[in-house]
Amino acid sequence: MMKRRDFFKNGLLTTLGLGVMGSRPVLAKPSLYKGEKAKNIIFLVSDGMSSGTLNMADILIRHKLGKPSNWISLYESNTVKRSLMDTASANSFVTDSAAAGSAWGGGHRVNNGALNIGPNGEENEPILQKFKSEGKAVGCVTSVQITHATPASFCVNQSSRNAMPLIAEDYLNLKFDVMMGGGREFFDPARRSDGKNLFSEFSEKGFQVVNNKEEMNQANSGKPILGVFTEDGLPYAIDREHDDNLKRTVPSLAEMTKKTIEILSQNQNGFVMQVEGGKVDWAAHGNDAAALLYDQMDFDEAVGVAMEFAMKDKNTLVVITTDHGNSNPGLFNPGPKNVKFESLFEAKATNQYILNQIKPDTSVSQAIDMVNHYQNVTLKQEEAEQLLKSFEIGADGLYNPGKLPFAYFAGILSNHNAVSWAHTNHSGDYVELATYGPGSENIPGFVKNYELHNFMLEASGVSRSKFAASV
Amino acid sequence: MMKRRDFFKNGLLTTLGLGVMGSRPVLAKPSLYKGEKAKNIIFLVSDGMSSGTLNMADILIRHKLGKPSNWISLYESNTVKRSLMDTASANSFVTDSAAAGSAWGGGHRVNNGALNIGPNGEENEPILQKFKSEGKAVGCVTSVQITHATPASFCVNQSSRNAMPLIAEDYLNLKFDVMMGGGREFFDPARRSDGKNLFSEFSEKGFQVVNNKEEMNQANSGKPILGVFTEDGLPYAIDREHDDNLKRTVPSLAEMTKKTIEILSQNQNGFVMQVEGGKVDWAAHGNDAAALLYDQMDFDEAVGVAMEFAMKDKNTLVVITTDHGNSNPGLFNPGPKNVKFESLFEAKATNQYILNQIKPDTSVSQAIDMVNHYQNVTLKQEEAEQLLKSFEIGADGLYNPGKLPFAYFAGILSNHNAVSWAHTNHSGDYVELATYGPGSENIPGFVKNYELHNFMLEASGVSRSKFAASV
Repeated sequence: MMKRRDFFKNGLLTTLGLGVMGSRPVLAKPSLYKGEKAKNIIFLVSDGMSSGTLNMADILIRHKLGKPSNWISLYESNTVKRSLMDTASANSFVTDSAAAGSAWGGGHRVNNGALNIGPNGEENEPILQKFKSEGKAVGCVTSVQITHATPASFCVNQSSRNAMPLIAEDYLNLKFDVMMGGGREFFDPARRSDGKNLFSEFSEKGFQVVNNKEEMNQANSGKPILGVFTEDGLPYAIDREHDDNLKRTVPSLAEMTKKTIEILSQNQNGFVMQVEGGKVDWAAHGNDAAALLYDQMDFDEAVGVAMEFAMKDKNTLVVITTDHGNSNPGLFNPGPKNVKFESLFEAKATNQYILNQIKPDTSVSQAIDMVNHYQNVTLKQEEAEQLLKSFEIGADGLYNPGKLPFAYFAGILSNHNAVSWAHTNHSGDYVELATYGPGSENIPGFVKNYELHNFMLEASGVSRSKFAASV
Repeated sequence: MMKRRDFFKNGLLTTLGLGVMGSRPVLAKPSLYKGEKAKNIIFLVSDGMSSGTLNMADILIRHKLGKPSNWISLYESNTVKRSLMDTASANSFVTDSAAAGSAWGGGHRVNNGALNIGPNGEENEPILQKFKSEGKAVGCVTSVQITHATPASFCVNQSSRNAMPLIAEDYLNLKFDVMMGGGREFFDPARRSDGKNLFSEFSEKGFQVVNNKEEMNQANSGKPILGVFTEDGLPYAIDREHDDNLKRTVPSLAEMTKKTIEILSQNQNGFVMQVEGGKVDWAAHGNDAAALLYDQMDFDEAVGVAMEFAMKDKNTLVVITTDHGNSNPGLFNPGPKNVKFESLFEAKATNQYILNQIKPDTSVSQAIDMVNHYQNVTLKQEEAEQLLKSFEIGADGLYNPGKLPFAYFAGILSNHNAVSWAHTNHSGDYVELATYGPGSENIPGFVKNYELHNFMLEASGVSRSKFAASV
């Protein structure tokens, strides 16, 4: 396999003989695929990706790599079917990730917070259980805890997404072939209230248990694998790339995706996997532009890995989407020659990283220097003063245990980097859905999120009547 | 023709024999059209429509009419090709309407503010001039001034979009077949600094000049027409519908579209027209949720009129899109049972209308009553106090000559109607593009805005080499 950088230097579509800028093939035809049914499915979710996230990341990627993002190049070359998807949950126009994932995973809308358990307590069989029982290899990888809502929604039934210690035990019992991401605390006997050592139990069941990138890369592709690389979510991509230790120990989403395909594709009956760029959502909650755009770029590399496999394999359905919008960021007033937005092109750290560097004794000039060093913008004296003061007020919000003043900092930065935000939470937006491979020719231009469940079953030829999922 | 309400009761696609919810036709095929080239083109622009605008309006329309918006139903039924379009101008990632319209209208990117005049002074021939010289009938309708940037971008060359008195004179010289919208001040001798009476001059050139809906409806479909219905932009749709006088005198965008098709389709060589929902953009600048969603609904009715004609005619290319995002609104925290967002389902007036009702002597309780009456939400005492105080501070911003505190009011309302905004200006988002009819099968899933110019020329069989437009 090519190395990551080589991969992008060559480019997804040029590598595969499809010129992006030149001749445009028509929309992918069934004749391009080997069979009428998909042997494999790769389902990629950039969690909480508003329209502006995709677009701004594409502008960034065009600058960094000299070509469009993989996602947009698939549109530009007419390689995928582009659809719009509604994202409601059973009890709200605005879903959380548990309900959105359950719509796909279980085929029915559930209330926010629930994992494949409906409003009346009904249990909807998760899609990876269905595929596993059909003899396919199955797995999930994510940049957040592997027990988090989106991967869990393809795997388990739980009335609350918060039951992550239980979800880790569910995974043990399900014995899926690959589970990789963060969330060590849910497996570690020292951190679990019941003292169970799930790492040992996975090993006893025949799993390879890996804790860092090197172990992952060296893992045997013939055996199931549990990979847990960090206590919490994985670090943001831009922070990982600027920290030698993290870069050595924590795999990128693309690297996890590649390893997972390597393992799952050993199964002669095919495989089904979910890939989640989970920290795109966290970055949006934190209105953290550098975190958001570089994690979307990290996700886009995983899209490239998946598409490279699928275009060679010709027997794989690829679904590329998000579960809901988040904070609806956009590029506004970019300044002469776009100089404000372009400050992000050479950013070195997330807002979160910077905020964590600010201590009670940090001076105004130190704060200015720090922001300038990491994000190439020069705060005014009064902005830096306000930033330091904002720590006294603190902040709430998801994924913010340190009560860092994320939204406040983002408001200051928006005058400098041209990225503004509508909120710090999920939106009810309809979202992007790109599909490639057997079955994609049947998907309409607008779908409801729960319709993807039966779509995947039908595309892969797994009997609909057997599961009788409907809404 | 059916009346507007009947039209929606029956529904676009059911009327035409295409079930939306039942069987799904495959993507529109060339075989559905009469010829290989489009005889007619209807180009519809919801100006400044962010992704959330389309989506929230669709939720509103589903409630009001019991079926999806026309735009979304065209996706759901796979009737149109769905693409994503970049919107940059020559000098910014974030375009204004003049540069965005010029990309389509002239085939080249220009700097913000310019109308088909490039960064080095080059004049790009506007597309309606090209089509007129080919013998086609041409025209524009809009809900803002007919001299405004978007219609002007299909018609004229001007170094500044602000030259609206000159643009009105350009229209006189161009003698296009239909021009309708607002902007009386640019035609009225009492308001023009040069004292010219453009209304008389249009009449002398053989135009029917109409000033209200009744005159428009009674106009002869065999003669060219200038329709100017208001001094400024037309009123917002929701304000028009709740004012008997406005409802009687000002046509909706759909009514203008229908009349325009009636007139232009008399030409045996075909026609090309632009329809702009221009006040969607103004509503976004004003962060005015009621204005935004009901004007998007008004635009969607025009989409219905255009598609009804095109599906019967089988010889018409329809383009449905927007020129750029604006303010990136979204639906956030809609409350239990979505009660907050649903307050907008029975709104009776725009924020602008309410703010114009507030006078220096308006009391806090009167303000609370007023907002409750018009928008079904109950402000807290302190919110109403803040609202009244905000008039003292005032506000700037486009399309706000009265310096009304739009953004401030929107911030208060967002806690009650669940609509939040990232900004008060255009965004750099890539945007929706839906195409139907001859040629649409060739359009890829991602295009640059300027590519639509040659796309329209090619789809209609107008020689590319003759005009040699390229970028």
